[in-house]
Amino acid sequence: MSAPTPVPAGLVEAFRDYERALMEDDVPALDRLFAPGPTTLRGDAQGLLVGHEAISAFRGSRGGAPRRRLVQTHVQTIDEDHALVVAVTELERGGRGQQTQLWARGPDGWQVTAAHVSVPAPALDTRVWRVVGDPLVPGSGDGPLAGQSVAVKDLYAVAGHRTGAGNPAWLATSPTAGEHAHAVARLLEAGADVRGIARTDELAWSLAGANHHTGTPPNPRAPYRLPGGSSSGSATAVSLGHATIGLGTDTGGSIRVPAAYQGLFGIRTTHSAVPVDGLVPLAPSYDAVGWLARDAATLAAVGEVLLPPADEDRAGTDEVVLVPQLLRLAEPAVAAAVRTAVPGGRRATVEQWPLGDLDRWLDAFRTVQAWEAWQSHGAWLEGRLDVLGPDVRGRFEHARTVTDGQADAARAVARGARAAVRSLVGRRVLLLPAASSVAPRVGDDVAATREATLRLTCLAGLAGLPAVTMPVQAGGLPAGACLVAAAGRDQDLLRLAAETQAPRP
Amino acid sequence: MSAPTPVPAGLVEAFRDYERALMEDDVPALDRLFAPGPTTLRGDAQGLLVGHEAISAFRGSRGGAPRRRLVQTHVQTIDEDHALVVAVTELERGGRGQQTQLWARGPDGWQVTAAHVSVPAPALDTRVWRVVGDPLVPGSGDGPLAGQSVAVKDLYAVAGHRTGAGNPAWLATSPTAGEHAHAVARLLEAGADVRGIARTDELAWSLAGANHHTGTPPNPRAPYRLPGGSSSGSATAVSLGHATIGLGTDTGGSIRVPAAYQGLFGIRTTHSAVPVDGLVPLAPSYDAVGWLARDAATLAAVGEVLLPPADEDRAGTDEVVLVPQLLRLAEPAVAAAVRTAVPGGRRATVEQWPLGDLDRWLDAFRTVQAWEAWQSHGAWLEGRLDVLGPDVRGRFEHARTVTDGQADAARAVARGARAAVRSLVGRRVLLLPAASSVAPRVGDDVAATREATLRLTCLAGLAGLPAVTMPVQAGGLPAGACLVAAAGRDQDLLRLAAETQAPRP
Repeated sequence: MSAPTPVPAGLVEAFRDYERALMEDDVPALDRLFAPGPTTLRGDAQGLLVGHEAISAFRGSRGGAPRRRLVQTHVQTIDEDHALVVAVTELERGGRGQQTQLWARGPDGWQVTAAHVSVPAPALDTRVWRVVGDPLVPGSGDGPLAGQSVAVKDLYAVAGHRTGAGNPAWLATSPTAGEHAHAVARLLEAGADVRGIARTDELAWSLAGANHHTGTPPNPRAPYRLPGGSSSGSATAVSLGHATIGLGTDTGGSIRVPAAYQGLFGIRTTHSAVPVDGLVPLAPSYDAVGWLARDAATLAAVGEVLLPPADEDRAGTDEVVLVPQLLRLAEPAVAAAVRTAVPGGRRATVEQWPLGDLDRWLDAFRTVQAWEAWQSHGAWLEGRLDVLGPDVRGRFEHARTVTDGQADAARAVARGARAAVRSLVGRRVLLLPAASSVAPRVGDDVAATREATLRLTCLAGLAGLPAVTMPVQAGGLPAGACLVAAAGRDQDLLRLAAETQAPRP
Repeated sequence: MSAPTPVPAGLVEAFRDYERALMEDDVPALDRLFAPGPTTLRGDAQGLLVGHEAISAFRGSRGGAPRRRLVQTHVQTIDEDHALVVAVTELERGGRGQQTQLWARGPDGWQVTAAHVSVPAPALDTRVWRVVGDPLVPGSGDGPLAGQSVAVKDLYAVAGHRTGAGNPAWLATSPTAGEHAHAVARLLEAGADVRGIARTDELAWSLAGANHHTGTPPNPRAPYRLPGGSSSGSATAVSLGHATIGLGTDTGGSIRVPAAYQGLFGIRTTHSAVPVDGLVPLAPSYDAVGWLARDAATLAAVGEVLLPPADEDRAGTDEVVLVPQLLRLAEPAVAAAVRTAVPGGRRATVEQWPLGDLDRWLDAFRTVQAWEAWQSHGAWLEGRLDVLGPDVRGRFEHARTVTDGQADAARAVARGARAAVRSLVGRRVLLLPAASSVAPRVGDDVAATREATLRLTCLAGLAGLPAVTMPVQAGGLPAGACLVAAAGRDQDLLRLAAETQAPRP
C-alpha cells in the first residue's frame, strides 16, 4: 500500500480480511465489515444501495464478486479512526476496475461506511442487446431522422440477421432475413441508423422484462427494479442513451409498461395503422407497432415517418377525460400522478364509466390473445414447449388448451368491448394509468401487478386504439400516464404529449 | 443532501462550485478544487490518475464532462474538516452514474483529495469494436475451441457483413461478404464463436493503434497509453475479456506490438502457412495471419486449428539465442526484461551477429511494403487519398511515388536479408524484444519508437519466419519478449511460450 501518512493500526488487516471475504463470497464476514445502519453506501454500475440492509440483501443474491487481484492500493489517512482506501483491481476475466472505500473504526472495529466499485463493461450488455454496431445498419444518411439511432426489438426482421424473438431455440431455427421489416426499412429511409437488435421477453408474451434465457435488462431510472416488457431491451437501450428510438410492439401493454417503469415516452399505434410486415406475431388482432423515446419530440418525429397522414375525418377534440374507476385500478401514488398529467395544463372532465364488464373484457382479451398466440406459434412449439422459460411456457401451455369454441365466444365479448370503449372515448382523449404500479423490484412476485396492469392496458388493445405514454413521478420513481383516443388519432396524441412535456408559456 | 450528521460549514458551497465548474469545463476552478500534491486521486473507467499534475493534464485535454444532473447526494461527515460526498448523477445522454469524493478542508478551503467517477457504458466501445454480438456469429458449438470467442480484425471477411479495414470510406464501398475468410471459417468450425468485428488501424498500416476516425482503443494494462496496432481492437478486446482470441494480421509487427504493449501472448505465423483468403491485403510478401490471447494455452489451441501439421523435416532445437545488438535496439528496461524470458528457465546462447546491413534491410522492407501497399490499394485510393487520416495518408502518398525500379532493387536487398536471417536463426530460437519500448503515452510523438521497433520487427517479416510474443514486465508496464524460429516451427514456439508461462516444476 502507498500512503502519504501512516496507515492507522488494524486497517491493513481489516482490508485484507475484506478482500478474502469478497473472494470467498463470505457474506457474513462482508456484512460484518460493512457498517450497520441506514447510511452505509455501496454503489456500482447497477446503482447505489443505501443502508446495510439493502447491501446485505444484494450480497446474498449475487453469488459472489468476479475473481480479481489488487494492482495498486492507495490509502488516504484522515485520522487514526478514518481512512479512504482506493484500489485498482485486475479482473481474472480481463480488464481493470477500481474500488473506493471509506473505512471507519468503531466499537466493532474497522468497517466500510461507503464503497464505490467499478469493473470493466462487457463488450455488450447481453441483457439489453443481442447484436449492436456502430451502427449495425446505416440509414440513408438523409431525412427527418438523420442522426437518430434505433434499438430494434428482436421481433422485427433486419436484413442479413436472424430474428431471435427472445428465445435461443427460435433464433437457432430462424432464417437470415433477406429484407428489413416494413417499419425498420422506413426508419432507415428516413435517415435513422439501426444501432442494434434489442432483447425482448420471450415471444413478446410478458410485461415484466425478465427474459429467462438472457436476463433482466436494467432499469436505469429505478435501479434493482424491473424494466418492463416485452419491449424491454428497446426501452432500456433508450434509457441508457444507447439509442434514441426504441422500436417495439404492443399487444397487451408491451410499450406502455416499459415506458411507465422507465420514465419514457412511448406510443402504441392504432391497430393496423403501421404495417406489421416482417414482424413475428403474437396475437394479430391486438399486435401493434410502437416505439419509445426519451422526449416527446423524438416520439412525434418517428410518427411523422411511420404513421399514415392524419385523416381529417378522424379529427377529434382535445378534451381530456379522467375515469375514477380506472384511476382506482392503479396504486394511489400512480393514480395521483396521472391526475396531474393533463396535457397542456387543461382541466380534465371527470366521468363515471359503465365498466361493470371490465373483468369479462379482460378475460375475453386473454382468451383471444392465447388462441391467436397458439395459432401463431403452436406449430413450432408443439413438441418443444420445454425451450421456453417457465412463465411464458405456462402461458403457451394454457394457450394450447383454448378451444375454437372458447375463442369464438371470447371474440364476441371482445367485439362488444371494442364498440363500448370506442363509444366511451368518442372524439375525446382518455387519460389513464399506463400501468397499475411503478416498476416492481426484481425478484418480487409480479402476478398481481400484471393482473392489475392488464385491466388498464387491455382497453386500448381490445379497441385497437392508439395509446401514448408520458412519464410521471410517483414516490420518486417513474410511472406512466397514458393518453388514448379514437383510431387514427395517433398524431393528435403525440402532439398532446409534446405539450405536456413542454407546457406553453 | 441527505446526511447522518451535520454537513460541515462551507462544504455545500464548495460542492456546488465544483458542479458548476465541471459543467462549464472551468479547468482552473477544477484544478483549484482538487487538492495539490502527488497523492490526490481521480479514477474512472479509463484508469486511476495519481497526483494533481496528472489529473490536471487529463482535464485540460478531455474537453469537458458529459452533461448531467444530480439525482441523489449523500454526505458522510467525518469531522469538521473532512467529509465523503456520494452523488448519483443522471446523464443528459441517458443512464445514471455515480461520483464519490473525499473532501478535506485545508489552508485553501475545501478540496477533493480523491474522486471516483462512473458513467454508464456505451452500447459498445466504438474504439474497440465496429459490430459485436452475443455472439455475432455462432460457432459449430463443438470442437477444440468450443467456448472461445473471437474478436475478428476488420480486415477479414465475415459472411453477411462488410469489411471496414479501419476506414469509413472503405466500409461504405465494401460489398457484403458472401462467405467467411479462411481463418474465420476454420475458427467457427472448431467451435469458437465470433464475438464481433474489431477495429484496426487504417488499412493495417500503423503500429500505434490510434485510428484517426474511430479513436484509440484503451490499453487496460497501461492506462492512458497506446494499445499498439494495427491489430489494436482485437488486442484490446482480448485484454478486456470481451473475447478470448484476437484474430489479427502482422505485416511489420501488427500482432507483436499490441501484444507487447498490452501484455498479451501473440503469434505472427510463418508467411503463407495460414491462407490469407478473404483478407484485405497490405503487402502480400509480408502479410501473415496472427492472433492474440491472454494465455499461452489458448494461443497454442488456436494454432492446432489454423496451422498446418508440424513438419518433421523442419524440426529444430530449443536452443535460445540472445543477440546483444538486437537487445540494444530496445529501451534498457525492455531489454533487461527480455533477457529474463528464456523459455523453461534454460540458459541462452549469447551471440554477436553481423547486422551491419540492418538499416539497409529495414529500408528494403519499407520500400517493398510501400510498393506492394500501393499495388494493393492504389486503384481505390487514387483520387481519394483525403479519406485517410494524416499518418496513414502520408505513408500512401509516399507509396504512390515508389517506382518499379526502386521496388526491384529493394526486393534484391530483401532477398539477401531473408537468406541472412534464416541462416543466422538456423534451427535455433532467437529471443529478441517484440517492440523497442513499452506503450507510449497517448498523444506522444511515436515516430522514433516506430522506427526503433521496425528495426526489430522487420527481421521476421523479411525472413517470413514465425514470431511468438510473450508478456514481460518493464518498469511496472507490459513489454514483449519475442521468439523467432525457422519457417514452419510455429508450433515449437507456441510450446516454448507455454513453458515460459508455466515453468515445469
